Amino acid sequence: MGSDSDWPVMRAAAEVMSEFDIPFEVDVVSAHRMPTEMISYGQSARDRGLRVIIAGAGGAAHLPGMLASVTTLPVVGVPVPLKTLDGMDSLLSIVQMPAGVPVAAVSIGGARNAGLLAVRMLACGADGTAARLHGALAEFANDLNRTAAVKGG
Amino acid sequence: MGSDSDWPVMRAAAEVMSEFDIPFEVDVVSAHRMPTEMISYGQSARDRGLRVIIAGAGGAAHLPGMLASVTTLPVVGVPVPLKTLDGMDSLLSIVQMPAGVPVAAVSIGGARNAGLLAVRMLACGADGTAARLHGALAEFANDLNRTAAVKGG
Amino acid sequence: MGSDSDWPVMRAAAEVMSEFDIPFEVDVVSAHRMPTEMISYGQSARDRGLRVIIAGAGGAAHLPGMLASVTTLPVVGVPVPLKTLDGMDSLLSIVQMPAGVPVAAVSIGGARNAGLLAVRMLACGADGTAARLHGALAEFANDLNRTAAVKGG
Amino acid sequence: MGSDSDWPVMRAAAEVMSEFDIPFEVDVVSAHRMPTEMISYGQSARDRGLRVIIAGAGGAAHLPGMLASVTTLPVVGVPVPLKTLDGMDSLLSIVQMPAGVPVAAVSIGGARNAGLLAVRMLACGADGTAARLHGALAEFANDLNRTAAVKGG
Amino acid sequence: MGSDSDWPVMRAAAEVMSEFDIPFEVDVVSAHRMPTEMISYGQSARDRGLRVIIAGAGGAAHLPGMLASVTTLPVVGVPVPLKTLDGMDSLLSIVQMPAGVPVAAVSIGGARNAGLLAVRMLACGADGTAARLHGALAEFANDLNRTAAVKGG
Amino acid sequence: MGSDSDWPVMRAAAEVMSEFDIPFEVDVVSAHRMPTEMISYGQSARDRGLRVIIAGAGGAAHLPGMLASVTTLPVVGVPVPLKTLDGMDSLLSIVQMPAGVPVAAVSIGGARNAGLLAVRMLACGADGTAARLHGALAEFANDLNRTAAVKGG
Amino acid sequence: MGSDSDWPVMRAAAEVMSEFDIPFEVDVVSAHRMPTEMISYGQSARDRGLRVIIAGAGGAAHLPGMLASVTTLPVVGVPVPLKTLDGMDSLLSIVQMPAGVPVAAVSIGGARNAGLLAVRMLACGADGTAARLHGALAEFANDLNRTAAVKGG
Amino acid sequence: MGSDSDWPVMRAAAEVMSEFDIPFEVDVVSAHRMPTEMISYGQSARDRGLRVIIAGAGGAAHLPGMLASVTTLPVVGVPVPLKTLDGMDSLLSIVQMPAGVPVAAVSIGGARNAGLLAVRMLACGADGTAARLHGALAEFANDLNRTAAVKGG
Repeated sequence: MGSDSDWPVMRAAAEVMSEFDIPFEVDVVSAHRMPTEMISYGQSARDRGLRVIIAGAGGAAHLPGMLASVTTLPVVGVPVPLKTLDGMDSLLSIVQMPAGVPVAAVSIGGARNAGLLAVRMLACGADGTAARLHGALAEFANDLNRTAAVKGG
Repeated sequence: MGSDSDWPVMRAAAEVMSEFDIPFEVDVVSAHRMPTEMISYGQSARDRGLRVIIAGAGGAAHLPGMLASVTTLPVVGVPVPLKTLDGMDSLLSIVQMPAGVPVAAVSIGGARNAGLLAVRMLACGADGTAARLHGALAEFANDLNRTAAVKGG
Repeated sequence: MGSDSDWPVMRAAAEVMSEFDIPFEVDVVSAHRMPTEMISYGQSARDRGLRVIIAGAGGAAHLPGMLASVTTLPVVGVPVPLKTLDGMDSLLSIVQMPAGVPVAAVSIGGARNAGLLAVRMLACGADGTAARLHGALAEFANDLNRTAAVKGG
Repeated sequence: MGSDSDWPVMRAAAEVMSEFDIPFEVDVVSAHRMPTEMISYGQSARDRGLRVIIAGAGGAAHLPGMLASVTTLPVVGVPVPLKTLDGMDSLLSIVQMPAGVPVAAVSIGGARNAGLLAVRMLACGADGTAARLHGALAEFANDLNRTAAVKGG
Repeated sequence: MGSDSDWPVMRAAAEVMSEFDIPFEVDVVSAHRMPTEMISYGQSARDRGLRVIIAGAGGAAHLPGMLASVTTLPVVGVPVPLKTLDGMDSLLSIVQMPAGVPVAAVSIGGARNAGLLAVRMLACGADGTAARLHGALAEFANDLNRTAAVKGG
Repeated sequence: MGSDSDWPVMRAAAEVMSEFDIPFEVDVVSAHRMPTEMISYGQSARDRGLRVIIAGAGGAAHLPGMLASVTTLPVVGVPVPLKTLDGMDSLLSIVQMPAGVPVAAVSIGGARNAGLLAVRMLACGADGTAARLHGALAEFANDLNRTAAVKGG
Repeated sequence: MGSDSDWPVMRAAAEVMSEFDIPFEVDVVSAHRMPTEMISYGQSARDRGLRVIIAGAGGAAHLPGMLASVTTLPVVGVPVPLKTLDGMDSLLSIVQMPAGVPVAAVSIGGARNAGLLAVRMLACGADGTAARLHGALAEFANDLNRTAAVKGG
Repeated sequence: MGSDSDWPVMRAAAEVMSEFDIPFEVDVVSAHRMPTEMISYGQSARDRGLRVIIAGAGGAAHLPGMLASVTTLPVVGVPVPLKTLDGMDSLLSIVQMPAGVPVAAVSIGGARNAGLLAVRMLACGADGTAARLHGALAEFANDLNRTAAVKGG
């Protein structure tokens, strides 16, 4: 994420990783205050073993797009709402990427879905982890369904 | 996609698949006019061997979110702009998903990036296809870079 | 409604039903967490004797449109505002339906009007219930008028 | 409708009436240029045998809401887009009605859906017309489905 | 105004009238709940001696425009903000009037300026009241200037 | 107006003046390119016999508000739409004036209504011109009504 | 700034000046309540030794643009958010200046960045002050970087 | 600029440089397709003798902000409008920078003003170039004034 002030929003992505027993790292890598470190972070991400990057940022939210420009890993962007504009600036700064450099945007403040999207990405392969996560996602969907159905009584 | 009128936008996603030699299928599965077929399509997608779904839709664009609700595959949503509102309605209908059911939104009309995002997802694993696609994405980034740099002359 | 968190908004629709002595049912049927139940709910609604469906949802609010796609009953959609965007995302997701599958949208948070709209639908026929409700709506309008006029003093 | 300039949009509602063999009348009744006639039109609508009113208007689109205030019939509002703002002003002027006086808003320029919504209202009763229209709507949905499915080939 | 809930906003207009010693009346005349009374109110306004009408309303704010359609008096519209949308719906519903029926819109919640605008209208003539009000407005501008200048100290 | 490029929009205001036989002047007085002339224009307007000022401007549309700050005459602001944003920037720049300095905003591109609003202001007094204009406005409303009614025929 | 109510936002610009040891003055110069003083302020600014003007204003925020029209100094505009619209009106009123009269807009409420932008302007020359400020800005960037990096720890 | 497709907009900035006899360079340096070159470009800009950077970009417009993060030079950002959203996404992506890293935003498509803003920055110093440019800006303002005044004739 671009700032530790994003953590109250972004922690929900970390929690998903824990729920699905997926190792992860959390870091503050500001596009604007740590630009060269941010570039290095993105460039080395794959080699360090990362498979998906989740990046949250607010306002002129450049972090997800800049990371996407220096890695071939899929990057999920979480628009963090600031004090004004309800996150619409963050959303547009993240989602309106030019052709060639994709970012996967989730909803404003939607860090939990960012985590779940990453899990789906890891689960769509043919390896053992994918199989395990596919099963976990199916169970997760069942749980969601049961919880919702109970409320409907 | 939800309608064949989406094809002029969505073909760019298909072209990416061809460029990266990834087998794919193209179908019209309207959330609103073919709801039960759409549900079946999503439910069977994984078993039919699909690994990522790219869904484009416009206006009250429910297709990506509904597919995401019946599959564990990652779903990429492309907001297709209609005659009014410049695709803002499509974007919000796609990206503002509730926690639990993620969709990966790309830019308005951004079908090419939807395709590239899918390639990144397929490339983030450890299997042979992933390795091949990782190499192809790295080459693709180099090409983008060279083309842009030449313009800067 | 799509979630029990919608109830503080949606209860106003239920209250209208009570005020006009119209039998009704309240249920949580999430488009995204209970997709197949939602489809079944809509498909069977008419046969179970329902005449109008009122569906409230927030954000990427797909419930009203999806129900409208599997029933011939009129569906009234209530945009429920979430933490950001003041319900504008909910409104656009509900109202911008493609030609062929109509939804009747009311104002953001306007569950009371959703209820009153349903009453008007039931009152526009030629049967006894319609006659009773027509009278009740006329009296309701008179009450509104009197209350407002008294304030004007 | 509020002006004959709305006709290119609104004719789609009339066409639906013809398709479903429902008698209807078309009239220009401007809220702003014919206010007293508009009030009379609404007040007498039920007694003249109307069962649903479809009102299209653009900009500060007051016609649907004002008609709804002088009749107990259900009123469907069609936001007609003008030269600027893409119909967002029309939509908000129509949909954001205060509690007590409901209007059923459809999409911007969505006159065809306004017509279909009216058909659904007429079809939700227990009388013979309702039964006929219910059947016709079911067939209509099948046609929509077949047409869409063929495209998906 | 359309509702007594508008009074906390609208009272600022009344205060201006008092400050400038201009007789005025305050009334609740709801466009939607008192449509015929509203029409009568507008039609008789000039004959009852009114010279300017200030109308505040929120959401689908039809009151200013409807009054303007039944009187030749200038009508000032005050967009009252409701719980969502920050008054943008109110503003557009008031300001986007069709050619032929003008409304003078002021800022969202700008009842004080609505009052001052009315004073300017009354002050632009050649009669004695106009002369008095012109002087009072000049003094008012001086006071504004002095107060602001002092702050700048 | 702020620029001669505003004339295609603003001429409609001049036409109203001609229709109602009201003497008027047309001038380009740019707030940003002729600031001191603009201030002088506003300061001397009343003494030169002007009774109402109609000011059209686009984008950061400061002309109406700045004129209102240096005169006690009523100022009508016309938001002129530029190439982007459909005049929403012009509207907000004109209508959102701070308390103390009112501007009467009309619709985007609504110069004809600006003219009609000015006529209403001149017609609300007790002098002979007011009486003449009141009659002319009443006839104008009748014409509007007849023209609209004929279309409804 | 246009009002002392802008001070809670604008003080952050003054603090930057203090941090960088740059002499500055703070004043309330309202475009709308002190128009002639505002014009004089701008016209004399350069001769009084000012090198950059930072102007904050809200709503119909005319101060930055009007100052820019009467000086050749660079003017930085700070959109101050008011009670409604989250500063979007302020931003558009400041940034959408016509060709010929530029204003440098910063983010909504972004007075700190306005100050830093002014420092950058003063630091881009070849004189001694520029050299000193260039060094200070480089150190400032290092501090930002270190603070952010520590958080990432 | 981020792409040669921005040139039709951005050339107006280059023209200003020519008009004011200021040496300049034009380059395509894409934040997303040439990220490391972009970082190098910004880091070396001052040492290569640049004094101001004008950066235009569209959509998720990250170029101005990223350059500002790696230089102490003032950076002017020009929001380039793309096919949808009228440049609102570009504007927000450029202007909503976090505290610490300022960008000077001009209007949507406002490259001419970006050039003029740069001239003002260069003219606010005490060196000879500043004196020359100050004179040229004063003459430029006179020309603007004369041209506008003639139109008002």
